[in-house]
Parts: sequence; C-alpha cells; structure tokens
Amino acid sequence: MSDVAPTVHPAWLPAEAFGPLGRRHTMAHGTGLLVDTVVGEVARACARYGGTVRHTPAGDPAAPAPHPTTVPSPPDRTPAPPVAEPDGDVDLLLALRDAPTLPAWARRLAAGAATPLGDEGFLLAGAGERTLLLADAPAGLLYGLFHLVRLGRAAFDARPVECHRPALALRMLDHWDNVDVHPVTGQVERGYAGGSIFWRDGAARGDLARVREYGRLLAACGVNAVAVNNVNVHATEARLLTERLGDVAAIADVLRPYGVRVHLSVTFAAPVVLGGLPNADPLDAAVRAWWADATRRVYDRIPDFGGYLVKADSEGQPGPFTYGRDHADGANLLAATLAPFGGVVHWRAFVYDHRQDWRDRSTDRARAAFDHFAPLDGRFRENVVLQVKHGPIDFQVREPVSPVLAAMPATRLAVEVQVTQEYTGQQRHVCYLGPWWSEILGFAPWGPDGPTVADVAAGTARTRDGRTGEAGGSRGQTPGGGLVGVSNVGADPFWTGHPLAQANLYAFGRLAWDPGLDPVAVLDEWIGLTFPPSTTGEPGLVRRTLHAVLDGSWWTYERYTAPLGVGFMVRPGHHYGPDVDGYEYTPWGTYHFADRDGVGVDRTRATGTGFTGQFPRPWSERYEDLDRCPDELLLFFHHVPYGHRLRSGRTVIQHIYDTHFAGVEQVEAMRGQWRRLAGLVDPALYARVSERLDEQRRCAAEWRDQINSYFFRKSGVPDEHGRRIW
Amino acid sequence: MSDVAPTVHPAWLPAEAFGPLGRRHTMAHGTGLLVDTVVGEVARACARYGGTVRHTPAGDPAAPAPHPTTVPSPPDRTPAPPVAEPDGDVDLLLALRDAPTLPAWARRLAAGAATPLGDEGFLLAGAGERTLLLADAPAGLLYGLFHLVRLGRAAFDARPVECHRPALALRMLDHWDNVDVHPVTGQVERGYAGGSIFWRDGAARGDLARVREYGRLLAACGVNAVAVNNVNVHATEARLLTERLGDVAAIADVLRPYGVRVHLSVTFAAPVVLGGLPNADPLDAAVRAWWADATRRVYDRIPDFGGYLVKADSEGQPGPFTYGRDHADGANLLAATLAPFGGVVHWRAFVYDHRQDWRDRSTDRARAAFDHFAPLDGRFRENVVLQVKHGPIDFQVREPVSPVLAAMPATRLAVEVQVTQEYTGQQRHVCYLGPWWSEILGFAPWGPDGPTVADVAAGTARTRDGRTGEAGGSRGQTPGGGLVGVSNVGADPFWTGHPLAQANLYAFGRLAWDPGLDPVAVLDEWIGLTFPPSTTGEPGLVRRTLHAVLDGSWWTYERYTAPLGVGFMVRPGHHYGPDVDGYEYTPWGTYHFADRDGVGVDRTRATGTGFTGQFPRPWSERYEDLDRCPDELLLFFHHVPYGHRLRSGRTVIQHIYDTHFAGVEQVEAMRGQWRRLAGLVDPALYARVSERLDEQRRCAAEWRDQINSYFFRKSGVPDEHGRRIW
Repeated sequence: MSDVAPTVHPAWLPAEAFGPLGRRHTMAHGTGLLVDTVVGEVARACARYGGTVRHTPAGDPAAPAPHPTTVPSPPDRTPAPPVAEPDGDVDLLLALRDAPTLPAWARRLAAGAATPLGDEGFLLAGAGERTLLLADAPAGLLYGLFHLVRLGRAAFDARPVECHRPALALRMLDHWDNVDVHPVTGQVERGYAGGSIFWRDGAARGDLARVREYGRLLAACGVNAVAVNNVNVHATEARLLTERLGDVAAIADVLRPYGVRVHLSVTFAAPVVLGGLPNADPLDAAVRAWWADATRRVYDRIPDFGGYLVKADSEGQPGPFTYGRDHADGANLLAATLAPFGGVVHWRAFVYDHRQDWRDRSTDRARAAFDHFAPLDGRFRENVVLQVKHGPIDFQVREPVSPVLAAMPATRLAVEVQVTQEYTGQQRHVCYLGPWWSEILGFAPWGPDGPTVADVAAGTARTRDGRTGEAGGSRGQTPGGGLVGVSNVGADPFWTGHPLAQANLYAFGRLAWDPGLDPVAVLDEWIGLTFPPSTTGEPGLVRRTLHAVLDGSWWTYERYTAPLGVGFMVRPGHHYGPDVDGYEYTPWGTYHFADRDGVGVDRTRATGTGFTGQFPRPWSERYEDLDRCPDELLLFFHHVPYGHRLRSGRTVIQHIYDTHFAGVEQVEAMRGQWRRLAGLVDPALYARVSERLDEQRRCAAEWRDQINSYFFRKSGVPDEHGRRIW
Repeated sequence: MSDVAPTVHPAWLPAEAFGPLGRRHTMAHGTGLLVDTVVGEVARACARYGGTVRHTPAGDPAAPAPHPTTVPSPPDRTPAPPVAEPDGDVDLLLALRDAPTLPAWARRLAAGAATPLGDEGFLLAGAGERTLLLADAPAGLLYGLFHLVRLGRAAFDARPVECHRPALALRMLDHWDNVDVHPVTGQVERGYAGGSIFWRDGAARGDLARVREYGRLLAACGVNAVAVNNVNVHATEARLLTERLGDVAAIADVLRPYGVRVHLSVTFAAPVVLGGLPNADPLDAAVRAWWADATRRVYDRIPDFGGYLVKADSEGQPGPFTYGRDHADGANLLAATLAPFGGVVHWRAFVYDHRQDWRDRSTDRARAAFDHFAPLDGRFRENVVLQVKHGPIDFQVREPVSPVLAAMPATRLAVEVQVTQEYTGQQRHVCYLGPWWSEILGFAPWGPDGPTVADVAAGTARTRDGRTGEAGGSRGQTPGGGLVGVSNVGADPFWTGHPLAQANLYAFGRLAWDPGLDPVAVLDEWIGLTFPPSTTGEPGLVRRTLHAVLDGSWWTYERYTAPLGVGFMVRPGHHYGPDVDGYEYTPWGTYHFADRDGVGVDRTRATGTGFTGQFPRPWSERYEDLDRCPDELLLFFHHVPYGHRLRSGRTVIQHIYDTHFAGVEQVEAMRGQWRRLAGLVDPALYARVSERLDEQRRCAAEWRDQINSYFFRKSGVPDEHGRRIW
C-alpha cells in the first residue's frame, strides 16, 4: 500500500500490480539509496502477498552497509514480511553487477551480457526456476523492478537474457505550475487537473506525500527529471532560485529515491530582479558572477540538481535580445555555471513574433524557430539542451515535425511534447496521444532510410552530410537532448482530471524510454496495470473496451476539430472548443486564410512563405508539391480551393464535412462502449469518465456544427450526403 | 476651490466657471440643507472673485435658523467673504418663494409665475440691475444656481421670466461598481476610468471627498439619483443591504447636500443568502417579512434612501422564476416594502436567454424583453420603475428603440442608456453619445405626431389607444420612470478615463433634465464650462476644435465598426475591438448570419423572427418593409444579399467598404484637429487625449481592415474604388 491518501487513485501502481512480485522469495545484492527503494518496494509487496525479501549489501568494504541482513521497514503500517532463508528458496535475484556477494549462477548469467548497462539499464534473465535482474547502477535496478511489475507473472517465465537501456537519457516532465495563483493562468498554466501537487496559494504544499507517490509513478514509467515550476516565471516563482530554494530542495528530497532529478525554471532577468544588478547581459562579468554564485548555492542544497529551464525572448519573457546578444550567449551563460556540477540548461526554442500583423502574409510563425536557432548550431555548450516543440507552431493536434530537429546536428536537441491536453481536449476529451508522439518520434526527416526524430533526441542521428547529430561526437556516451513533456498532472484525485488521461502520462514515459514501442502495446501495458484483472469484472471486456475507447481517440479528436493540419481554430485565451476565426485577425501568427474560394496557408517556396525549404529532402519536396503533400497536412502547407481533390479522392470541402460528421459519431460510439463498463470498474472512475464523455460529445458536436457551418457559409457547397449543416 | 485633491480634474466646475456669480452681491432667502449648499457655493465663489453673499433664512417661526445672518463657512481654507450691506447693493436674489423675508420687488416678480415650480424647478428673472432666482423647494435653488453658472455673464442680462422644471423626475446613474475586485469584471464592471470612487479592494474608501465632488458635478448637470453598486450583486456586495449598510449611509450623507439620493442594487436571493431563509419566494410570508424588516432598517439609517435596483432572472442572477413567480410578483414584493418610505424599486427588463443555441434561428434575443414584460403591463405597483435598455439587444452603437417602451402604458418605464462606453470605444475612443441619446429620446414610436420616448420616460405619453402612459393617471404629478445611465465615472483623475468622455456624463444629466435639448448645444455648454475661455489660449479655436472632434464622433464610431445596425462584432469578453465572428457561434443570441451571399438578421413577420411585430405602427410596417426600413438599421431587420441597394443608392457591400474607409479617415482628421490644441489647453489633458486618439486611430484601422477583409473574403466583391483590402 502506498502512503498516499486513500482518495488518490493509484494510477498504474495499484497494490494488485505487485502480486506476482510479492509472492516470490527475493534476494537483493547492492547498496545505494535507489537499491533501498527497490528493496522497500519488494518488501511492501511481500508483506501483502506472502513472499520474502532479503537484502545483502554489496561488498565494497569502504561503503557502510545500511541494511546488512535485515529488511528495511516499509514506510507504512504494513507488518514486516518474514525473512527468507539464505539462497535455497530464492527465486528472484536483484543485484548490482559488481556486488561481491553475487552467487555463481548469477555471475555466469551476467557474464553473458558483455555490453555495459549504463546508469539506468538492466538485464533480465530466467534460469530454471530463478529469475535474475541485474544492473550496473542502482537506477537500473529500480527501472528493472518496475519492468518486472509491468510483466507481471510472465516476468518469471523462462526467458533468454535480455538487456534494457533507455534510448533517451533525459526523460523529463515540465510542470507549468505557479507558486502564486496567477490572475490569468491560475495555479497551473494550461493545467486541467486541479491545483498543483507542489504549490498552493503562494507557498509550497507542506505535505509532500503526493509528490513522493508521483515520483514513484514516474519511475514506473521511466521519467527521470521534473521541472517544478512554470516556464513563465513570475515574481514569486523567480525566488525559487534564491530565498525559496528550500522548497525546491524538499521536493528533490522526496523525488530522489525514485531517480527523479529536479530542474528549475528561471527567469533570464534574475540578476536584475533578484540580484539587483543593473542588467542581465550574458556577457557582463557581474552577471556571470551572479549566476555562478546562485548556481553554487543551488548545488550546495541539492547536489543532484538537474539544471535550469529557460523560456527567453518568448511571449514577453526576458532574454538576451535585450542586450543585443543571441540565444547561444544566453544559454551558454547559464550552462557555464551548471557544468562543474553536471547540470544542464534546457533552453526553449519557442521563439517567435507574438505581435505579428495578420495583414502581413510574408511573416510566418512556422519559420521562426528555425530562423532564430539554426544559424546558432555549434555555438551551444555541451550541457545546453535546446528544447524544441515537436511542431513549428504550438502543440496542435496535427503539425509537421519542426524542421529545427533536422537542422542542428551540432546541438543537443530535446523534443518537447504536450502531455497536458491544451489543444487536444483539455482532459475533458479522451485523446490518447501515444500514436501522435510515436509518429513524431518515428518521423524520418531525411527520408525513410535515414535517422528519425527519436535518433535526434537520442543524439545518435546521422544528418544529411554524414555527421552525427551529437554535439561534439567525441564525448562517448552522448545523451542527446531527450524527450520533454509538459505535465498533465495536478492535485486531482485521478492525477490527470480525466482518468483516462493517465494513459498519456504513462505513454510519455514509456516512449521516452523506448520510442520504438508500439503505442497500442504501451496502452495495453497501462490498461493491465491500472485495471488489474483481479479488480474488475469481465477483465477481457474491460481491456477491449478501453482499447476501443482510447486507441483511435487522437484521430477522432483530429476529425472533429481543425481540418487537414490547418490548426488553431480554438477559442482565444482558454483554447477549448471551436472558434474558427478566433485567431484569424490577431497578432498570434496562427491563420487559416479561409475565403469564399478556398482555405489554407501557402508555405511553399514557389508562391508562399518558403517554410517548406526549411526541411531537408525529401520532405522539402514532398511538402512543396501539392500532389504529394500528405493529406493530413495539406492546409498547413497549401492554400487550395474547396474543390481541390485530396489524395484520398475526396474534395477538401467534402472531407471537412465527412470527417466532422464521422468524428462526432465516433465519440458517440465511445460513449456507448464506455457504458458497457458500468459496474465493472471503480464507480468513481466510471462516473468521472462518463461525465467527461458527455461533455466530449457536446463539445464535439459544437466543433462539427461550427466548422461545417463556417465552411458551408463560406463555400456555399452543399454536403454530398445532404446532412444537416446549420 | 473644491476640497478635492488638486490632481483631480474639475470637469465642468472649474473655479473660473463661478466668476460671474462670484462678482455679484447676493442675498439668499430660505432654509434647508440644500439652501445651505447653495449659499456655500456662492460664498466660495465670492471669496475668490470679490462678491458678497448674505443669507436670510426663511421666517418659518417653527424652523430653527441655522445661519441667521452670517455666511456659512466654506468647507475649505478659503477666507470668509465680506458680508454685504442689507438690500441696497444686492444684484442677485436667491429665494424660496415662501420665504417671508422676500422683498417686495421679488414678490411681485414671483407672482407673475403662477405655475408651481415643483420640487426641483426654478424661476429666473431679470429686473433692472437685479436678477432673481426663485424656487418652491431648496433643490430648485440648487439647480437654479448651477443654471446661473452655465449661463455665466448672460445670467445677469435683462431677461423675461423663465421657468425651468425637469422633464424627467428620476435622473439616475447606475454604478456597476463592485466592493470586492471581482476576478472577471474587476472593481468596476465595464468600467474604463480606473477604480471605483466608492469602493476599493473589498471595502468602502475611507475618504469621501471624491464622492462629495461627484455629487456636486451631478447636481450641476441635473442628476438626482445614484445606485452605488453593481447590478450583478456578488457575495460581499449583497451585504451592503445589511451589515455593510453603514458604508451606503456614509455615501448618502455626502451626496445629500447636492440633492442626490442613494439607491442600492440588491440580490433577489437576499432572504436566502443574508437571511438564512430556505427560499426567496416573493409570495412567501417569511420572505415578505424579511424584506420589510430589511427595508425598515435601511430607512432607519438613510431616511431619504432612493430604493432598490434589481437585475433578476438575467444572465444568471437569481429571480422570481425559481419559485414559479413572475417579474411583477418579484418587483411588487420589494415595492411594497419601499412604498411606506417613498422609495422605488428599479426592476430591469434586461431578461433573455443567454444560453441560446446559435443553430436555432427562431429564438430572437431582441424579442425577449417584450415577450417577458409586455404581458405584465398593469401588474406593477406604482413605485415600481421598469428599467428598459434603450434598444432590444445591449447598448450597441445602433439599435432600434426597444418596443417595450411603447408596449406598457400602465407601467412606469425608465429608459436605460450606457454612459460608460462598453460598446462605443471604452473611453479610449472619442464617442460623444449626446446625439444618440437625443435620437432615442426623440423617437416617436407611434409616428411623427405621437409622443416620444422622452414622453414615455416622463410618464406623459399618450399611447395609440389614447390612454396616458402614466401608471394610474390620477396620481397627479406622475414622475414616469425617467432616464437611467450606467455611469462612466471612476477614480481616474479625469473622472472618465478619456477626458472628453466627461461630455457624455454631462450630456446625460442635461438630456435627462430636458430631453429636447440640442445635443450640440449641450456640448457647447460643456465646452464653455470645462474649458473656460480665461484658461485656454485662443478660446475660439479651442471651442471649434472640440466641436470638430466631438460633434460627429458617434457617427464616426458607427462607420468603422459593425455596419448597418447588425451589431455585436466585438471581441467576446472585453467587448473592445473587432471580432466579426466572435459571437456568431455562441449562446449569447447576437448573430449576423453572414455567408458568401449576404448578411443580416431576418426579424420580419413575413419570413423571420417576427420582431417587427412588437412595434406599433408605423414602425411595425416600416421595419418590415425592405424598401422603407432605415438604412442604418437594415441588417438589424433584414438578411440581404451583398448586392442589395440601400436607400442611399449604394450596395450593402460597397457601403461597408466606404464607411469603413471613411471612418478611419475621420479619426485621422480628429487627430489632426486635436493637435492644433497643443499648448492651448491643460498639458496633462492634452497628452491624455492625444494618447487615446492614437489608440483610436490604431483600433479604427483594425476595425476597418477586419470588417472589410471579412466581407471581402466572404463576398468576393472588390471595392469599387480599388482600395486596399487585406
């Protein structure tokens, strides 16, 4: 049992998920904080399910042996499990490879895997009745443990030796949480799951039990870093770097046992607003000294502090432009202070003109990140991660992949996705984003035989000119920039507002660990863990229904919202629900240019903004070519008449009508499917999902009707099937 | 000198305006609080300009004589003026008609005006070198005094006897001021002049000097009632009726000397939220008793309390519908408790479905007030004033007059206008509303020979069936419901944000006193008072320029905003600036139905919502008839093709283009004209107006471009003159 309040949903770590593990007789070899975490988890499971666990610390004579032969006490009231007899009845061995106490059979098995497992990898092997989980470092044991949990009973089947290492070293969640309730954005900017788990009404939450449980959930899906405050850093939040640092350290203390490092969003103006310096010029010696001192103080308190996250010169946030410096100057300033401590700076590439003139069709927000950053490739320090939104605009339900990801081979690039559903239904709509992220990570910017976006994020991409994508290829194990997600978590009892949105958080971690995973298989894992068969009626029906509701829900959402990649037909401000012209005449650079004849944004080199030219071949050519551009991105790249025929054979206008009718029908089907689960799953969860599906149905119909009416009024083209358009 | 902080602009009561009065030798006869006010004003003027004043109280032997022969001390540090010698050198006599001390010559003059002057009227007469201002009641003297101020030197020219009485007895400003800063609407809902002069951050402002000065300004333009809090009554504001009543009483105390009565917005749910009763059913005896008790307590504290203002069953506010009762039941409940004390209830007729379905073209918000209230005519108590917005929608720059105003002959009707410029530029744009109100008040619902809206508000209208519009015609001097304006005043140093918006406040009072006044003449009064020639360079140029900027500014605003009466093309929420489709697919009932072929709302009986049928003839016929409907309201009543020819001869689409180009050109001309005043008027005022004119120019161009682009994209019709449409 977790020590979290019983009203909080256990997500993918219900007690039942630990049944197979808790029935085993386990021996653990090795020392370290995270080994203790692992042993504690096993002990807790054993206490419930009757297994045993014994912990033999590694034999480093210099190291103290915190748990020589006893089992660590679980943190709750569960009675300590019986201590297993040595060796004979052990059927699960958890061990660090260099543990001198490792028995011979395990040593032989381990020798079969010569490759290093790294800081976080693990080896799993079955030998007769025994199962071995081996790691080179404590974090590997932790991830291996949760891998066993995921596998359930199958973990203990005979199996060949298999090694698991994360593809991406940095797997991070950014919390856009404010300490103060912001008058416009609230406690959590773009948060749809209640308050913040870290902050409340201007202060840190006193009780960190929820954060500890969060760390456990993150470890169980593979996330290893968290930024604890909003990238828009307001006055109070700026002080987390200085006088409120203790609050950050407290969070770090409870996340550390789960291998999660803490990062902090800082304001580039900190030397001015906190330090009282006259400027924040990154080339000013006093500014450098101020940051060096501030960073040193952070590491004094938090030795494993992850680093800084910065939104600079973006949507009004301060940045190096003020001083005539560029983003490399700005990022390197902070990176230099973090480098001695092993920290990184995440520098966001989300820079564009948010005071554009809608009349000006030559300026193209989609071009902005590339235009700002591509020329800086090679200028960033090794511990700068340039954090690039997956698409060139802003987390729309459909965008091309950002060309920045294929343009900076000498820079560590992170891909940023939005787990929080700002533009995908705000956790009132079911929208499983695994397939979308999988598509992004699997996108091959240089063509089908080239590396993928995941390779770029891993730092292993080879670019068109044959260089590796690593910044300074000689570094050995270059981590790349990894995957970053904007968190969808809040103080809501279900963590994510919509209970089924937990699947997005889970899939984020799993895909960050292994971008090659099938997102439906990941969803299946999540279902198995979150709805363990022993807790539901008709487990087969539950599983099938959850797949039916979730698998295709991203495409469904796409169908009833902005069509064909055109994006941004949402209500300004809150971004929920339709408003076709809501951004059409605004300074935000997000237009569709619909008139009575056609719709879409001409971003070709031939006649448009030239954005297609920011991609390498073959995409620069495919996107440019009206006949070869993928249908789903047609209006992102081209302005076409309503009668234009898609590759699907349908006209654009008929596609709009058809998909919008279909999308609502699919939501109705989802509601029908869900209703079959009445009485089969937790009633509170059932009720919450039901209520949200009702809202999704209402809102989807609103989208359908507004989009269809808008385009019918503009085009005058009737629906081929004579359906009702208002 | 006023006792207000010197940083507050004196508006239309600068010291210089009192010059002609302050040079006279004045004798005042009569007693009463307002007589004291008058004498104090004169004394203040004399102290500055060398005149004298003597106050001989009336000889009612029962009445105390508060200022037997001395001059009351002015409220500031100004030294007391010299006391005049009796009689001989008096050149201005201010007197209550029944003052026994009245000299014979004045008595003779007064006898010439047999008509009673009423509570607020006055008589002005010149006799040789002497001028007589006579009233039947102290308030008359007060209004007469400010009439003298307005007249300036001309007040003392020889003139025949003239009598002035207000056409409308109730001349009221509603403050939509919140006590608490509301999270959405702020300190003042739809306020564009800074904070509230009454409230700040959850409490009453301690210093009421500003309120006192406000009362003085109101008296000087003719306003005699103020509602001190928002019609949307939130939790804190509800308590103004009970434990916070002292705050209201304090305001009443400082406004009383200027003849301004205080009214209070109350929540219909008060018996529940304040009294703890289980319901607020107007027919429930306990509810009636609660209100009776609450009202009695109010009058214990504020004997001349004006009454309650109620927004019920409107935009989410509670009301009698909850209990299956109607608006007459609700209003009469409160009226019954107010009647014994002479108070009235202002009951707003702004009731409509704000959760309409945009798909439903049969529901018409314009119809709502009539449909709700016309059937209740005759059901309201005598001290209920039904407060009707001037148009059927919501204070748009152009609407037809509300048909409710011609439909309830047995009800006291007040016309509600918006002095605050919610939909007319929010005090960032110059928009002098005098002509708009004048047009509304002068509108003749029953045709050119019938009574006007002003007659309805005065309670003197004769309806089509020959009955008077008075509720209970036998009451003698029936006051009618009067004119109500939503205040545009705030804590801003210029009172109204835009200094030239003061003219709207002034004109509101003057037109409420006499709806027949020429709004340009009223503006001329305002200019003369606010920019006294002695304080400006080139007074002729100043006056001409202010007329050039202000006279036609309402039409200018109309030209560059929503065309031909269609209304509501504003940004949702704040209502500033254009968003053509902003409300098109919302539940608010404010649509234009533009498609590729045409635009407008069909409200005819023949094919539309039938709203035209709510008007009496001839308007029911004129509005119905596409060929006779006034151009400026065409799209309010009809949906027409873009090629439809207006009575002006232009097509609708060309009219849209032409007026939008013209509107911006006119704003540019206003800016040019204003610049001529650099160095000629108060520099702070000059700078404020200049800055706002820049914003008006920017915003007008935004309107022009968005409206023109929107309709060009929809219609495909090019501008005949080939001007730039984006």
